[in-house]
Amino acid sequence: MNKKIVLSILGKILWAEAALLVLPLIVSIIYGNSCIPAFLITIAVAVIIALPLIFLCKTDNKRIYSKEGFVIVSLAWIIMSVIGCLPFVISGEIPSFFDALFETVSGFTTTGASILTDIEGMSEGLLFWRSFTHWIGGMGVLVFVLALSQELPDRSIHIMRAEMPGPIVDKLVPKAKETAKILYLIYIVLTLAEIVILVLCKMPLFEAVVHTFGTAGTGGFGVKADSMGSYSPVIQWVIAVFMFIFGINFNLYYLILLKRIRSVFRSSELWVYVGVGVVSCALITFNIYDSCEGLSEALRLSAFQVSSVMTTTGYATADFNLWPGFSKTLLLILMFMGACAGSTAGGLKVSRVIILVKGMRRELHRLLHPRSVRTLKLEGKRLDEQTLSSANSYLTVYVASVVVIFLLLSIDNFDIETNFSATVACFNNIGPGLGVVGPAGNFSEYSVFSKIILTAAMLLGRLEIFPLLLCFSPATWLKK
Amino acid sequence: MNKKIVLSILGKILWAEAALLVLPLIVSIIYGNSCIPAFLITIAVAVIIALPLIFLCKTDNKRIYSKEGFVIVSLAWIIMSVIGCLPFVISGEIPSFFDALFETVSGFTTTGASILTDIEGMSEGLLFWRSFTHWIGGMGVLVFVLALSQELPDRSIHIMRAEMPGPIVDKLVPKAKETAKILYLIYIVLTLAEIVILVLCKMPLFEAVVHTFGTAGTGGFGVKADSMGSYSPVIQWVIAVFMFIFGINFNLYYLILLKRIRSVFRSSELWVYVGVGVVSCALITFNIYDSCEGLSEALRLSAFQVSSVMTTTGYATADFNLWPGFSKTLLLILMFMGACAGSTAGGLKVSRVIILVKGMRRELHRLLHPRSVRTLKLEGKRLDEQTLSSANSYLTVYVASVVVIFLLLSIDNFDIETNFSATVACFNNIGPGLGVVGPAGNFSEYSVFSKIILTAAMLLGRLEIFPLLLCFSPATWLKK
Repeated sequence: MNKKIVLSILGKILWAEAALLVLPLIVSIIYGNSCIPAFLITIAVAVIIALPLIFLCKTDNKRIYSKEGFVIVSLAWIIMSVIGCLPFVISGEIPSFFDALFETVSGFTTTGASILTDIEGMSEGLLFWRSFTHWIGGMGVLVFVLALSQELPDRSIHIMRAEMPGPIVDKLVPKAKETAKILYLIYIVLTLAEIVILVLCKMPLFEAVVHTFGTAGTGGFGVKADSMGSYSPVIQWVIAVFMFIFGINFNLYYLILLKRIRSVFRSSELWVYVGVGVVSCALITFNIYDSCEGLSEALRLSAFQVSSVMTTTGYATADFNLWPGFSKTLLLILMFMGACAGSTAGGLKVSRVIILVKGMRRELHRLLHPRSVRTLKLEGKRLDEQTLSSANSYLTVYVASVVVIFLLLSIDNFDIETNFSATVACFNNIGPGLGVVGPAGNFSEYSVFSKIILTAAMLLGRLEIFPLLLCFSPATWLKK
Repeated sequence: MNKKIVLSILGKILWAEAALLVLPLIVSIIYGNSCIPAFLITIAVAVIIALPLIFLCKTDNKRIYSKEGFVIVSLAWIIMSVIGCLPFVISGEIPSFFDALFETVSGFTTTGASILTDIEGMSEGLLFWRSFTHWIGGMGVLVFVLALSQELPDRSIHIMRAEMPGPIVDKLVPKAKETAKILYLIYIVLTLAEIVILVLCKMPLFEAVVHTFGTAGTGGFGVKADSMGSYSPVIQWVIAVFMFIFGINFNLYYLILLKRIRSVFRSSELWVYVGVGVVSCALITFNIYDSCEGLSEALRLSAFQVSSVMTTTGYATADFNLWPGFSKTLLLILMFMGACAGSTAGGLKVSRVIILVKGMRRELHRLLHPRSVRTLKLEGKRLDEQTLSSANSYLTVYVASVVVIFLLLSIDNFDIETNFSATVACFNNIGPGLGVVGPAGNFSEYSVFSKIILTAAMLLGRLEIFPLLLCFSPATWLKK
């Protein structure tokens, strides 16, 4: 384990977080909020920890392996969250540390699950920070640091691989640093586009910025108790479309920049993603039609909720807890799949589902023709056995995680619908679940123990389990 | 496709079923039930279909491949169920065909889910037949026919493999016919032992026989509305222990016969099975202690329910629907795992879970040491990649099946707890679920559509999905 490089990158992460905290500080100064000192103290704490790490841990051995990648990413996300929750605690707006940590992890992991019972009573500065964590966490804070750093470890692709979701992480260009820059550039352009459009649709600027952060990171934090329910139909459509856009693999946007439009349309992940979205939307529209005022409302409610759940954003324009059983169940199932790999969304990822289904079909073929050998393809490329076996192992560890979290939550004695959907909603980084934690409810009623479990679940889901498991497994730290 | 041999074996299956139907006929004569004609007509129908199949489809080409194995097993189970439900329909005791089919498939697949609302009003002959289907389905009707047939197809192991549950089906002895005989011998001895012990514990003979069938097949049909709740504590313990015994891999009993006791104790599947059982039992005892009259009652209730759910039997001595959330959730999770491969139980099977966990651990190891090559072992033998990849594909298709069944059920608009547990309980061949279909309820309230779905789910679960999928896939029937 190259400890020095691990510590020095953690220092850089904290330094970056201190820099990012300046933005909410400015917002709170503009609005004259009382949380200004809370931000100043937090920035100071971050800097005081960051400086010695950066300067004392300089090393010439810049070589890292996948091991260091997992450790860096896991520790970075934990430290970032602990520091990030300080403004809430210090300002007293979320007095309990574990509540604040839950909210912050929910922000960074772009889950959007909340323990707040009175959102509209929060100060603008903290509301901004809360949503800004979505934007930072969406594309990944380490990707951000990679894009900006002067000195990088060798093979920093190991860090990107550990942080970026999906079964296969490709470099767009040979250098990890350049890839990170391109990704952030696309991310920023799309973010600005959404803010401008929302303002043109007459959403106040502050709300436009906050909701864009929530959409871009596919997070789901808002500023109103009824999420997006009180906005105009146009605004709801804009958000629905942008959520869907941020659920698409960013590599495809890069291909568009390169004018390789044909390659974009050959992406099977895109087609499955769009197909599942359209079919689900049609089914739910049909199912809720009777309780709506006409087709246009049914379609809008259905499209918004499907887009929100598939991309694991979690905004709501309706309390789907009250919808018929079929719609509720379909949404619950969509929560598992998630959106495309290489996007800001959570869940299993469409491409991983495709790989699993392909593996299953090959097994069926093999049962009929035991001696045949079939190679699998994905997006035109040969799918190596390693990737298939990784996707399979991921499914196992994914199911095992759901089981363990679900069982631990059950100690709180809520009903099974609430516990199961809370597990799924946090682990897949969606936000609201069903029952007590439905769109109209929140997570405040869970015990501290359950909140800690759910906080861990959100981190496990965002980092796709393996990095955290490895970071806390003795085998990683023992010398051979 | 060797159609002649497929049809001739189907004929033999029907012939065997006609012979087996003589037993409930005798019971109904003894008790003077009005269902005697129903049995006579059913036997006649079975014989009339069976004879031409057996005699007209004689062929010298006795060669079968895995393809024929899947088709024979799938069609055999479907035909057997359709004929098996006739006594219920003809006698008028279950007038609806689909209800009767549900009940019969639930019997043969050893699920034990019931649509009966008044069990105690049924005639003895039909109650006997209902439970006898558990016993027949438990070890497998094709295994039964293999054990008795004079003329067998070459490589009939393909048929056994398709019918016997679990990731690896070993022949105990070189010949499939001998293996089938040994398995049935062990099965019969254990069955007789249970009947004798129950009678010694003062259970009336008829009830002892019926409940032994339910235990041996890990089915769960009984004769009382409250399942096993009204029997003495001693009887409850006897049933609990025998359920657990029938959940153990029968190969281990064969090893005991051969006096290879050491090999038995080296079985990791056995240890995991016992370990999970003991730990779950302890946790639930602790969890329900407050609502019980002392430790002995808590332990008995907990042990019985854990044994019943793990072995996917489904008998109940308590309405666990009313237990605390933790116990309910733990039981729901145990429903998935099931018991040992090579037993009469359903679910994923312990050995498959072990294989999946081993695969997952290897993936973790590979992430740390990308160039290492590790071979996996199970029960002291090298686990080939094929078996691991099959287990992985099985998990994928298993999860996919749960999702599809769960979604289709949701159209009936029951709550999510009811629908999800009904899916799991039928698909894993357990029987009762939670909510409306809990131990104190039944499946009668579901629509005909849902009953058909659940009937299919029980068959899919019993035959471990692949045979049925392949039987109904065009690729199986097309000539190359």
